[in-house]
Amino acid sequence: MTVTTSPSVLTLDALLTHWQGHRALTRRVIEAFPEDQLFTFSLGGMRPFGDLAWEAFGVSAYNVTGLSTDDWSWHQPEHAPSHDRAALLGAWDGLTPGLDVAFPAIDAAWFVTPQKMAWGTMPPLGSVMYAIDNEVHHRGQGYVYLRALGIEPPAFYER
Amino acid sequence: MTVTTSPSVLTLDALLTHWQGHRALTRRVIEAFPEDQLFTFSLGGMRPFGDLAWEAFGVSAYNVTGLSTDDWSWHQPEHAPSHDRAALLGAWDGLTPGLDVAFPAIDAAWFVTPQKMAWGTMPPLGSVMYAIDNEVHHRGQGYVYLRALGIEPPAFYER
Repeated sequence: MTVTTSPSVLTLDALLTHWQGHRALTRRVIEAFPEDQLFTFSLGGMRPFGDLAWEAFGVSAYNVTGLSTDDWSWHQPEHAPSHDRAALLGAWDGLTPGLDVAFPAIDAAWFVTPQKMAWGTMPPLGSVMYAIDNEVHHRGQGYVYLRALGIEPPAFYER
Repeated sequence: MTVTTSPSVLTLDALLTHWQGHRALTRRVIEAFPEDQLFTFSLGGMRPFGDLAWEAFGVSAYNVTGLSTDDWSWHQPEHAPSHDRAALLGAWDGLTPGLDVAFPAIDAAWFVTPQKMAWGTMPPLGSVMYAIDNEVHHRGQGYVYLRALGIEPPAFYER
């Protein structure tokens, strides 16, 4: 009997580059908002983009901690996120080297092994991909906010 | 001298499941729109969601053709896309088995080898990931439209 295993095609290096590219684009979207609209403007009763960006930051930080320590417990932030763009960008940039440090140390077999996480049982790979998808999803919403404010968003294809 | 290669962690099977899961969610978003708003309602001067969904369909179809035939030339559609939901959903569903057929036949080495494509030089892997990102991006915009129409969108985390 032959067991056919589907070949793996995405390296950890490529996934890191992909993730950092998305984070860099989201950072440009944060910067594209007028400072007085980032935490106030919204459409359809949704959260302002600054709050969506803080969520994306939180999900990424959760993953960086998990990748670095194998501690996947969810810690609710003690304070509501600051409505200050500099604080958001500072947190964003503070996390960036964390990804760069965490990825080269990842054990590939561990990375694809399901375990209990904040949002169910999944491998670290699934959790990282969810973080990226969630960020792209909310960032797309930020593009609508920017257009509604009459502002040209950063090019989607530039990372 | 030791050359360290970053290990691959995402299988072709997992990528197929990931992509089909996103396509299934986008399909539910298409269905969530009132039929008379799908190709008319928009915010910020953007395209209606039906047009964004046709774009996502076109990018996916381009990739399925490329994956199946290694022909990555871009063919501009001869007609403007139909403003009929049934036609959109029919095209959407017609493409679904194309992904399922194409993926098991993919050669992994070819899949990660850069070549000339419609949007520059990249491997088929990069083109597929771009298709998924682009769909998630525009689908997130559809969520804002739905909220602005007073409609609860499908759960993002369900695929």
